[in-house]
Amino acid sequence: MTGRPAGPDDLTLTLENPRAERVKKVAALAGRSARSRAGVLLVEGPQSVREVVRFAPERVRDLYVSADALERHREIVAEALAAERWVHLGTDAVLHAMSGDAQGILAVVDETGVALDDVLAQSPRLIAVLSNVRDPGNAGAAIRAADAAGADAVILAGECVDPSNPKVVRSAAGSLFHLPVVRALPLLDAIVELQDAGLRVLAADGAGTVTLGGPGADAEALAVPTAWVLGNEAWGLSADERDLADEVVRIPIYGRAESLNLATAASVCLYASAAAHRQA
Amino acid sequence: MTGRPAGPDDLTLTLENPRAERVKKVAALAGRSARSRAGVLLVEGPQSVREVVRFAPERVRDLYVSADALERHREIVAEALAAERWVHLGTDAVLHAMSGDAQGILAVVDETGVALDDVLAQSPRLIAVLSNVRDPGNAGAAIRAADAAGADAVILAGECVDPSNPKVVRSAAGSLFHLPVVRALPLLDAIVELQDAGLRVLAADGAGTVTLGGPGADAEALAVPTAWVLGNEAWGLSADERDLADEVVRIPIYGRAESLNLATAASVCLYASAAAHRQA
Repeated sequence: MTGRPAGPDDLTLTLENPRAERVKKVAALAGRSARSRAGVLLVEGPQSVREVVRFAPERVRDLYVSADALERHREIVAEALAAERWVHLGTDAVLHAMSGDAQGILAVVDETGVALDDVLAQSPRLIAVLSNVRDPGNAGAAIRAADAAGADAVILAGECVDPSNPKVVRSAAGSLFHLPVVRALPLLDAIVELQDAGLRVLAADGAGTVTLGGPGADAEALAVPTAWVLGNEAWGLSADERDLADEVVRIPIYGRAESLNLATAASVCLYASAAAHRQA
Repeated sequence: MTGRPAGPDDLTLTLENPRAERVKKVAALAGRSARSRAGVLLVEGPQSVREVVRFAPERVRDLYVSADALERHREIVAEALAAERWVHLGTDAVLHAMSGDAQGILAVVDETGVALDDVLAQSPRLIAVLSNVRDPGNAGAAIRAADAAGADAVILAGECVDPSNPKVVRSAAGSLFHLPVVRALPLLDAIVELQDAGLRVLAADGAGTVTLGGPGADAEALAVPTAWVLGNEAWGLSADERDLADEVVRIPIYGRAESLNLATAASVCLYASAAAHRQA
């Protein structure tokens, strides 16, 4: 290679062997140990790659694209090259060997660590806290819902799924690169720090005594800076965790369902806060 | 077998061979063609089995349980026996051969067909219409959200995923047995029929000119009988479909996400209607 290509048309085919060491290394990033050893994650498919190139280009180590995908997504590649990122043109077989879910385009992206202190220094008004959330699709959809509702950050507390898990990355649909995601904090510590920073901490739980939309969780009560805590899909929050929250809020169930799933519960709570913040 | 057992304690081990024909037939219900040939679906795991036994016992053809699961879920088995359902005690190996996701308890359940006319005859106030929804987890979570929000029915229009797909059944968490699910209707026909029945049809779409919570989609406007139409995860609704709706409503996006996923969008829209119906 004689220097970086200036634009999509300057790219030449450099990866033709799907069994090359480099290809295997990228494919291995589907596994947690390889990701954490390398300090990177795999971002698959045009939507997620577009978002990381646009919102966090400095994190992109390498972008891989097939000729077909290059035609369909020239603007992503152009943006990556403009940001002086390494872009590699590979055969379909190479891209497919790297990932079965990439639709011809993927990026290897640096992990970042965001500290809760840094988030709190920005005077956040809405934070989503996911505690012990294990299902990657649910975690990703909840991060995406938090982003859509205008949350300032997401905290993954307790033993949550690794947010670099490819299924989380896919279902977050780029939102991982839109807002800070703080990892691996004990939930009780997180609640105390959020309260110390002046946020009202609401635990969303079917055992709640306050009903979303009713007194204590109506538009007026939700107009203050708020952190919503959502627990594990199956067992929710512990009594200790609920006790420490400022309020335990139940989403009203009008039908016969026992509860909502995690991502839908998060979206209902976060949108209620978002609306209240904008009415106030 | 000398007659039906009266209670959980009367069950005897009748299924010991994981390679028996009966076991293979149950396992085959993971596939669509076997389900549709037999006119049944597979309901896996205690939560879903509990809901079908409680809310639609007449549909349960056979319930299979391991000794361990029987100890944990005696009340489900007792309820099934009280409803004169066939319950079969099998070894762990048999249950595992039937399904990897059953946690020791599963049921084979009759398919039912619900017609839109029957739903409309009940003067519904809230209906969710999913059009061309392909992802089973998303479809199941949306059906669960519709149930939680008190919807009177769900319509699966266009080329939706089969609601008997085991992943839909699991992620619906019993809601498939709580409210009628109408299948396989062309969307444009469904919209016209809903309008003829006096429902206001709202298409949820990022291209909407009316914003959820704003004029045309605020609590007052949402207080009438309403059907929400949600389109495919990737391509949304067609121009024809949007044109036929009474209003195209966008969920406000406060952050950088392009959109919400299908189930979270459904929950935000349906809960807005549910709240409006109860304030009115």
